[in-house]
Amino acid sequence: MDIAVLGAGAMGILFGGYLSERNNVVLVGRNKENMESIKRDGVIIREKDEKEKVYFPSATVDTDEIKNVDLVILFVKSGNSEEVLEKHKSIIGKNTVLMTLQNGVGHEEILCRYANKENVIIGTTQQGSFRIDYRTVCHSGGGNSALGAICGKSERFKYIAEEFEKCGFLCEVSDNVGYMIWNKIMINASSSILSGLLQVPQGYVAENRNAWNIAEKLIEEICIAADCQGYKFDMNEQKQRLYDHLKNAPDGLTSIYADIKEGRKTEVRKINGAVIEAAKSKEISLPVNETIFNLVTALEGKF
Amino acid sequence: MDIAVLGAGAMGILFGGYLSERNNVVLVGRNKENMESIKRDGVIIREKDEKEKVYFPSATVDTDEIKNVDLVILFVKSGNSEEVLEKHKSIIGKNTVLMTLQNGVGHEEILCRYANKENVIIGTTQQGSFRIDYRTVCHSGGGNSALGAICGKSERFKYIAEEFEKCGFLCEVSDNVGYMIWNKIMINASSSILSGLLQVPQGYVAENRNAWNIAEKLIEEICIAADCQGYKFDMNEQKQRLYDHLKNAPDGLTSIYADIKEGRKTEVRKINGAVIEAAKSKEISLPVNETIFNLVTALEGKF
Repeated sequence: MDIAVLGAGAMGILFGGYLSERNNVVLVGRNKENMESIKRDGVIIREKDEKEKVYFPSATVDTDEIKNVDLVILFVKSGNSEEVLEKHKSIIGKNTVLMTLQNGVGHEEILCRYANKENVIIGTTQQGSFRIDYRTVCHSGGGNSALGAICGKSERFKYIAEEFEKCGFLCEVSDNVGYMIWNKIMINASSSILSGLLQVPQGYVAENRNAWNIAEKLIEEICIAADCQGYKFDMNEQKQRLYDHLKNAPDGLTSIYADIKEGRKTEVRKINGAVIEAAKSKEISLPVNETIFNLVTALEGKF
Repeated sequence: MDIAVLGAGAMGILFGGYLSERNNVVLVGRNKENMESIKRDGVIIREKDEKEKVYFPSATVDTDEIKNVDLVILFVKSGNSEEVLEKHKSIIGKNTVLMTLQNGVGHEEILCRYANKENVIIGTTQQGSFRIDYRTVCHSGGGNSALGAICGKSERFKYIAEEFEKCGFLCEVSDNVGYMIWNKIMINASSSILSGLLQVPQGYVAENRNAWNIAEKLIEEICIAADCQGYKFDMNEQKQRLYDHLKNAPDGLTSIYADIKEGRKTEVRKINGAVIEAAKSKEISLPVNETIFNLVTALEGKF
């Protein structure tokens, strides 16, 4: 397949790198010098066992020469989705599949403005990655990815899931991807955001009584928000799942942690912001999510 | 008067210094070397106009030789009140007046364990001070102080208020000091705590839309908590008062800001913690205060 990966951050490099083993992949980034260096010298993916491998996707800042790729994967920060899609919209033809694996909910609205909605995939992944330098990432977490159509059956995208599997990513298609996305939000909107605010590894959220108290309140509110969109979750199960997740990888550093540490905007709008919006649609307010959302946004105001 | 000031921090030095001009004042601190230096060389108070003056209270870490002072003023961090009173209880005789001007509510319970409740004064002050070094403080804010008895009429303590006035502190006695303390909590439990969490000067709380949003929610909840203890406040008036306060001194750095910056425990337990307790007495929960309380306490867990 001809694949364009929009965004050459930690996740873009991970997916672009792996997929380039069997496909024509172009990484689309913002920094010309970095993209030229990647095109020349490749990207480096460091696995958990410390082994490193170099992959050779193409790389560019300028997509004028690229037309009608088979698949576009959006991996920019969600706050930049619109700007980046607008800039590179010429690569999206009428048969191009446009996919997001970004964190948070509500991305499909923007995606449908740039591709036929029959060709839009929203997905979620348990893969994790963080950047070491502009062309080196650490593949910090594996796991399943799930791809879903936003209209019609997801089965028609099975060939993409199969290609992902061949390149090393466990992947399935699902007609219940909305549920999976909320499942991920449970963690992103609770422990990930707290590890960012407190600037601690995620395990601290389970270990510290007060941090855990907030995490539990967030989970309760996220379950209410998910319910507003028709997704039922058991609060106690979700708390236990979060707790186990944190205890399994206590040293994990989240992307929100890195964003706040380095003075970048976070994805809080698509995470806790989306939770708040979901509940607002039923006129329910979520004071703990609102407080956390406002704190992170107020912190960003300092940058 | 023979006066002992427990706590040689920013406020202890300010009050101990001023009062030493007309009274026998002993500052009681924890660091022997620092106390010996203060005893020898005095404390330095820098006024807003940059002028500095040296004052000569006595200073000690050891109160074994001191008996039955007329007045003990407690100026340690509220979390240390009990430990410090226990250590120095021999200076409190049956006629000794024991006074606190600490931030927050609920101090009287501890004070009454160490002095006759007829001799206990709770008060509040608009005076502000921050430490430059162990014997130098900057007198950052003036204003009124109010002293109140916890039983009977406050009028009987007028001689103390008059002595404070003679030493340079505007001061009154009031039978409504509980109301004044809640009035101060409005600011401490909203903008002061937020300026600490966000590590910003207090004016940022009024300028940043998201920070101000939290401040307003906090004020609403504090009004509810005050109401639970019989103190009526108008929410909109309080928001306006807070806003004006922040706009008047936007560069102000609060003691909670300094505590978090320097990795010390804050007074959040006696501030937002006390607000939460006041509402809990009527089975009302205050989710925004609880979230902020838990965040600050979780941050302290890192130190």
